[in-house]
Amino acid sequence: MSEITTPSVDPQKQPEDAARHRRPGRRGAERQRARSPGSRYAKLANTLARTEILPPEALEDIHQASLTVLEEVGMDIILPEARERMKTAGADVTPGEQRVRFDRGLILEMIASAPSSFTMFARNPARNVEIGGNNLVFAQVASAPFVTDRDGGRRVGNREDFRKLVKLAQHYDVIHTTGGYPVEPVDIHASVRHLDCLSDLVKFTDKVFHCYSLGKQRNLDALEIARIGRGISVEQMEREPSLFTVINSSSPLRLDGPMLQGIIEMSSRNQVVIMTPFTLAGAMAPVTIAGALVQQNAEALCGIAFTQMVRKGAPVMYGGFTSNVDMKTGAPAFGTPEYMKAVIAGGQLARKYGVPYRTSNTNAANTLDAQAAYESMMSLWALTQGGGNFVLHAAGWTEGGLTASFEKFILDVDMLQMVAEFLSPLDVSADALALEAVRDVGPGGHYFGTAHTLARYENAFYSPILSDWRNFETWTEAGRPTTYDHANRVFKQALTAYEQPPLDPAIEEELDSFVARRKAEGGVPTDF
Amino acid sequence: MSEITTPSVDPQKQPEDAARHRRPGRRGAERQRARSPGSRYAKLANTLARTEILPPEALEDIHQASLTVLEEVGMDIILPEARERMKTAGADVTPGEQRVRFDRGLILEMIASAPSSFTMFARNPARNVEIGGNNLVFAQVASAPFVTDRDGGRRVGNREDFRKLVKLAQHYDVIHTTGGYPVEPVDIHASVRHLDCLSDLVKFTDKVFHCYSLGKQRNLDALEIARIGRGISVEQMEREPSLFTVINSSSPLRLDGPMLQGIIEMSSRNQVVIMTPFTLAGAMAPVTIAGALVQQNAEALCGIAFTQMVRKGAPVMYGGFTSNVDMKTGAPAFGTPEYMKAVIAGGQLARKYGVPYRTSNTNAANTLDAQAAYESMMSLWALTQGGGNFVLHAAGWTEGGLTASFEKFILDVDMLQMVAEFLSPLDVSADALALEAVRDVGPGGHYFGTAHTLARYENAFYSPILSDWRNFETWTEAGRPTTYDHANRVFKQALTAYEQPPLDPAIEEELDSFVARRKAEGGVPTDF
Repeated sequence: MSEITTPSVDPQKQPEDAARHRRPGRRGAERQRARSPGSRYAKLANTLARTEILPPEALEDIHQASLTVLEEVGMDIILPEARERMKTAGADVTPGEQRVRFDRGLILEMIASAPSSFTMFARNPARNVEIGGNNLVFAQVASAPFVTDRDGGRRVGNREDFRKLVKLAQHYDVIHTTGGYPVEPVDIHASVRHLDCLSDLVKFTDKVFHCYSLGKQRNLDALEIARIGRGISVEQMEREPSLFTVINSSSPLRLDGPMLQGIIEMSSRNQVVIMTPFTLAGAMAPVTIAGALVQQNAEALCGIAFTQMVRKGAPVMYGGFTSNVDMKTGAPAFGTPEYMKAVIAGGQLARKYGVPYRTSNTNAANTLDAQAAYESMMSLWALTQGGGNFVLHAAGWTEGGLTASFEKFILDVDMLQMVAEFLSPLDVSADALALEAVRDVGPGGHYFGTAHTLARYENAFYSPILSDWRNFETWTEAGRPTTYDHANRVFKQALTAYEQPPLDPAIEEELDSFVARRKAEGGVPTDF
Repeated sequence: MSEITTPSVDPQKQPEDAARHRRPGRRGAERQRARSPGSRYAKLANTLARTEILPPEALEDIHQASLTVLEEVGMDIILPEARERMKTAGADVTPGEQRVRFDRGLILEMIASAPSSFTMFARNPARNVEIGGNNLVFAQVASAPFVTDRDGGRRVGNREDFRKLVKLAQHYDVIHTTGGYPVEPVDIHASVRHLDCLSDLVKFTDKVFHCYSLGKQRNLDALEIARIGRGISVEQMEREPSLFTVINSSSPLRLDGPMLQGIIEMSSRNQVVIMTPFTLAGAMAPVTIAGALVQQNAEALCGIAFTQMVRKGAPVMYGGFTSNVDMKTGAPAFGTPEYMKAVIAGGQLARKYGVPYRTSNTNAANTLDAQAAYESMMSLWALTQGGGNFVLHAAGWTEGGLTASFEKFILDVDMLQMVAEFLSPLDVSADALALEAVRDVGPGGHYFGTAHTLARYENAFYSPILSDWRNFETWTEAGRPTTYDHANRVFKQALTAYEQPPLDPAIEEELDSFVARRKAEGGVPTDF
């Protein structure tokens, strides 16, 4: 089911050590947990048949209804330059008015030129990621205002925690890209925050990163930092998408100026736009999931079409983020049955348009309890079966996105790795069918210690990071640790084991020099 | 996707109360949590396309390999009467030897007469369950030696806890049947335990129940108690399966005497047999999942074929219970990626044979932490996508089946209800598409309080039992409760809200009289 190939092997363990290893002390287990997971999860593919919950006629109904919305209601486009470009492309623009309406033919013509797959290039080519098709790419949590770990409690985001979370994203191969600022470091002045953060992302990871579209200059700085980080020319970067931005519509039916500017700056340079309406059913979208999907689709199609008006063939993803609110409190809910339906239906829509599909690993839990796990696992279920290609907030997102959690990061890494293992092919070779082993053991025997078992047991099964499978008595003697306890220990071990990826000194100097110059210039205006 | 029809409505809430209800106190929420969920989950259907991880040729390879095992290696059949019946049917039986071999043609001929679907009849006809096809039926935890709740801790099973768990199974409609003794009440003497327990199952629930196949007399007593409970004749009961038994092979490749006797007693009377090999890869089955599936399939086909040798057309299910062990400790693991693969592949095998598929909701957690939730949710993911028809241990199973947990029972009920909601059809009517509402609100507005929202918000979304969606500050003021805390409170509320189902006094008298007579006779021998 996947391109997973080389299982990581611990050379210290040999089959003949089996008996000795049957009850390892905690130190052995911890050593294993702290080690880098190798390349097993660096590239993932999901070849499962996609689950579909919309019959073809329902899919068509949502499609047509969203086109009707764009044609008859239209969107508010809060940037004159964007309205000009839309008018040039054939949209219905009235001078002096923000409302823009789009003929359905225009929308369909525009989205047809969006590529169905593309590569995002990292400064380390081994970290390049393929977007679209059967590829499954995980990005860490982004944009949380708060950060938490059990020792320090919940606190406002800061650069130290920002860096730690970025290091964790680098440490685990199942995290394929960062995804924005994992936590907002408010101890850096907003005028220069993007310079420091993007510089950190280049230095502490060698993976693809994201830039916020919060004004043209931030986009331009990010583009330059990404170019410097890869050590390439402007022309090469224009051929090789190396930076991505998430564009959220201001639902319902509005695209704000900085977001539109972000599309213009990024798409015109062939960089990646992830067009994601945030359509909470019952709040900023109709209370019905079908209605929220109509609105999501209208907003997504409008944004995707605009990327193609800016530059035909520019790489873009269809982002789905429809969930429901708690109708008793108005609070957003995530990882719910309704969220699952929206994720799977969103995948059907994205495939209909041949555009890669961005999803998320969500939950609304306030702590690392069962709720955090079941809401996340329901999200992973839906995005796996629904054919998500790129998963933002894949690790560390909690409390509905308000908080980045160190412990949740580890829990998510474990769950993502389990999804990857589930998607890996089931070996059904003659050897795996084990007819000879069955003959040898026969009725009434057992398979512990047989040749067939000894030759395979080391890598036969996924060895989870957190699951505590000790028997109740042993677990009680150990102080009855929960998943939360294990995750708390493991994230610190991972930070200790973190290795900074090498960076050409010339590139580092150029980067530092650029950041220093831009800081000296005052960064960006912050009169917001 | 489901036959879910009537949403439960709380008549105390009206749309105009919306504002007042936006921040309910805990008492309101608790009242809602404690109430019986009505009939919304009484009948479930899963119309999702099944996920397949075995390509057709791999499915055929496993099928053929398992037939080769039965033909060349055979099974040890530890009951002379069973070997006689097998010999009569055409199996290769050598007088004085336990080993029996089966021609593949014989196996295929026998399983062809197993029905693809059937009804199990409860004493309350509204609780009848349809087995097979798209039907999804949940049974509670069974056979745990220990029981736990947070107040009382982990303790050996007893009748008081047995009764409480049975009451919880009755209370929630998403639990469609009981599934054996939820916990083994060791304070009842083994010679009469089945009489007291089965009598309790008739009195405290009106749902279908299970009997253990631990010797012929226990089966006969259970058959009589099921007949009395329904108030029907022996003949009617023979037309209407009203009792089920789980038959486990003693893997590898052995069927013990009491299990074989159970098949004979149950199948000959047209009652339901769930044939479930317990094939732990790396322990009692080959270390490869494909090899374990070969062995599972061989054992399942042997047992299913035997039911049809006893009585053509007798109702039987294909049980899948292949998981892996922790190769470091030998401990069984559940809800793992390997378990998911085995569950989905097992569904492909069961469908190949046209026999309803029994699965389980498993985990190996020692407490109600994130692990308990993610392992269970991975089990539910696999059995839903894999087409499980009947789910044993659906609620309350923890610690690899060693312990029945009151809190886990509630967590599972919530997760089962979320699966049911996920499987319910997505309304894509013109009304749900909400084009008029989108027109009315337009760009930049919101949907709180619109007519479209007010008309639907009460039942628009699933209202979870346990998920705590309060914001961090409110949740902190409330003492930062976890899922475990909520589940602890809810199970007690459910027990308080439990209502004993009515039972015809004549039936109760007949039941009591039968139990008293059988006790006076000494119950069953316990010289084991």
